[in-house]
Amino acid sequence: MAQKPSIPKGTRDFSPAEVNRRNYIISTIKKQFQHFGFQPIETPSFENSSTLMGKYGEEGDRLIFKILNSGDFLSKVKDDLYTEKDSLKITSKISEKALRYDLTVPFARYVVQHQNEIEFPFKRYQIQPVWRADRPQKGRFREFFQCDADVVGSDSLWQEVEFLQLYDAVFTSLKLNVVTIKINNRKILSGFAEVIEESDKLIDFTVALDKLDKIGKDGVVKEMREKGISDEAIQKIDPIFQLNGDFSAKIQGLKSILSTSEIGKKGIEELEFIQQAVEAMPLKTATLDLDVTLARGLNYYTGAIFEISAPEGVKMGSIGGGGRYDDLTGIFGLKNMSGIGISFGLDRIYLVLEELNLFPETVEENTKLIFINFGQKEALYAMKSVRALRDAGINAEVYPDSAKMKKQMTHANRRNIPYVVLAGTEEIEAEKYTIKHMNSGEQETISLQAIIEKLR
Amino acid sequence: MAQKPSIPKGTRDFSPAEVNRRNYIISTIKKQFQHFGFQPIETPSFENSSTLMGKYGEEGDRLIFKILNSGDFLSKVKDDLYTEKDSLKITSKISEKALRYDLTVPFARYVVQHQNEIEFPFKRYQIQPVWRADRPQKGRFREFFQCDADVVGSDSLWQEVEFLQLYDAVFTSLKLNVVTIKINNRKILSGFAEVIEESDKLIDFTVALDKLDKIGKDGVVKEMREKGISDEAIQKIDPIFQLNGDFSAKIQGLKSILSTSEIGKKGIEELEFIQQAVEAMPLKTATLDLDVTLARGLNYYTGAIFEISAPEGVKMGSIGGGGRYDDLTGIFGLKNMSGIGISFGLDRIYLVLEELNLFPETVEENTKLIFINFGQKEALYAMKSVRALRDAGINAEVYPDSAKMKKQMTHANRRNIPYVVLAGTEEIEAEKYTIKHMNSGEQETISLQAIIEKLR
Repeated sequence: MAQKPSIPKGTRDFSPAEVNRRNYIISTIKKQFQHFGFQPIETPSFENSSTLMGKYGEEGDRLIFKILNSGDFLSKVKDDLYTEKDSLKITSKISEKALRYDLTVPFARYVVQHQNEIEFPFKRYQIQPVWRADRPQKGRFREFFQCDADVVGSDSLWQEVEFLQLYDAVFTSLKLNVVTIKINNRKILSGFAEVIEESDKLIDFTVALDKLDKIGKDGVVKEMREKGISDEAIQKIDPIFQLNGDFSAKIQGLKSILSTSEIGKKGIEELEFIQQAVEAMPLKTATLDLDVTLARGLNYYTGAIFEISAPEGVKMGSIGGGGRYDDLTGIFGLKNMSGIGISFGLDRIYLVLEELNLFPETVEENTKLIFINFGQKEALYAMKSVRALRDAGINAEVYPDSAKMKKQMTHANRRNIPYVVLAGTEEIEAEKYTIKHMNSGEQETISLQAIIEKLR
Repeated sequence: MAQKPSIPKGTRDFSPAEVNRRNYIISTIKKQFQHFGFQPIETPSFENSSTLMGKYGEEGDRLIFKILNSGDFLSKVKDDLYTEKDSLKITSKISEKALRYDLTVPFARYVVQHQNEIEFPFKRYQIQPVWRADRPQKGRFREFFQCDADVVGSDSLWQEVEFLQLYDAVFTSLKLNVVTIKINNRKILSGFAEVIEESDKLIDFTVALDKLDKIGKDGVVKEMREKGISDEAIQKIDPIFQLNGDFSAKIQGLKSILSTSEIGKKGIEELEFIQQAVEAMPLKTATLDLDVTLARGLNYYTGAIFEISAPEGVKMGSIGGGGRYDDLTGIFGLKNMSGIGISFGLDRIYLVLEELNLFPETVEENTKLIFINFGQKEALYAMKSVRALRDAGINAEVYPDSAKMKKQMTHANRRNIPYVVLAGTEEIEAEKYTIKHMNSGEQETISLQAIIEKLR
């Protein structure tokens, strides 16, 4: 019995229609990356394990796909370790490479490794797959593409402004005209922790606060209490929950809450710079919103934090995010290299465009016309003609066999090919072509040049 | 001490210049694939091991990268097997997934799995990385891209003709105007084995014959003898080595050698059909050559075999190849599905274009112009202007910091940005821009609209 074929869970095959739609999103993003001066790099699918391990926390280490060493990999495992039969301990002895988990750490590695060839500030984009051994669920896969743009080597706040514009430009191009860009600043979060005198619990504090959307104020307070944040501190937090109004109103609120925190005031200053620039150059379609609970769980952010919410009404988490990190390359030995970057969630953007019916019709277009095959002599005439059409930039085919007419027409129909050409003895003699529009059924007999002009 | 970063051997980082050049090749190939009516699919980077193992021979199995199971993978290994400490035996217990080794087997798996959604004949292209644990050497990597086009579901010889035209169209587009397409047919090889009465040694025979280029006639004869092919048979082979002249002359020679072999005569018939079609529709720049020693080591070819030689003078093996296989999907349970496909060797084509200096200059182009940053107020003016330029489709930037003029100019220079814009107080008042061409040093003060017209 032959094997029944399947693919690993959490992975996907993409049909022609799906590839075309994904490429539409990718090329739209890529075009804007280029307009903004970002340059493409690519890094290997697998890195040395030492490059990746320990960079994403314990949970991350667990979710990294490890590649088994080639050859007699067990020969390198000492007998006393082997007898323990401990998967965790043995892993590093039988696996030296791992599939990349995101594009950020490989980018940091790239910058450090190639620092002498790179002209800073370095604006790079990278669109490649990443792999995570996560439990698959709706919209979460074990193999998925990340689309990242980062700048390293500049701590100018204009970068923050540029990234807001970049998000705005991409989503406007995609006709996704109602996204909200949520912004926060790690310094605001640090300021909060400072004023409640729980700076050593900053991470626990922000992780809890980040969940306000999902679990509400009571849930957040409960989680903070569980993490050992004092009741007194929690009371002091209360004004944070009361922040509302527009961007400026929230800034005013923050000024009062953070009046005693130097770092908090620095955060406010940065937010105000960005706000003023956006006021002077309004975003085209996106809305900027200050969300002081936003933390994105990533400890390496040190300044701005961004997150894109899908349009209201579409049930989908964030469709993009990013922020500033002051010491990403430090882990590989290159200090004082400030960076800022954003990411687009390709799969989720795909689902949103599909739900809102925003893919342009032309995205599906492939072959424009197919010649019916009436036999040897006619096929040669068709092949010659198709060649001229292709040279003129028109995607064209000849049906490969002189099968029954009905079969050939059905094929054209199922493939959504808009035009069929019939060229039999008469047409060949007259050097003409009978071209039929499949949808309307209209047909006319014209020259090759006329077909080219018609379809181009 | 921080880690010194590096990447696994046999893998590569691609710099912006390299990515741009690779994308130039890929997009040229893709465009022709589309002109010929091929549609894109994508498959997962890793497949179930059972899909891949046993499809590439013993050597292939060894070269497939296996992915370690997640979690406590050793718990699934029974103690008595574990104590054997046998890497080969334990592999299938601790690894269920593997990185794809080529695009052909995943394509066969795709066709069988999705046979009910596919309209046949199915013309698909696929451009994705593959991985092999081969020993790295010049032009051979552990991660590399394959660019494949295949048709399944048609045994029409017009497909062979189309693929020759496709090769010709791609290499002509790449200005690689002197490639040779070598063609052979598995039936010719089977015919040879038949007439020398060594049909059971067909593989050994063709593998040896395929090396004629490299080891000469004496080497081939020696290898055949070692493989147990009789001296009598080897004597009978002699006319094969004498075949020369043009395509037609070789066909005449074959007719005499294979006069007693039915399968051999079928092979000749197929070659003649292709030759006649090519004569009626000459290739644009490529040369078609009949090479009866061509076997390409792949046992699944059953009809035409193609191989592309790099232009003479460039020391590089084949830069593409392919052929017809009558039963590729049979391994996954779908019988009688004839296919034919070709592949482009991206890395080698890259090296050839580089050596012959055939990359177009525009391939390197990224940012067209950069604004010098003179400070807060000027930067805002620049940011606003850059935004209008980007909307007009021009890649433009503002230097992020108000650094020293010299530093900013050096940056523009090193990045090969052709134009620099200086907009200070005077320009802002007049709503003008001083634009300087970096190469010539020429500069003029003009409006934004004039810049757009100049650069577009």
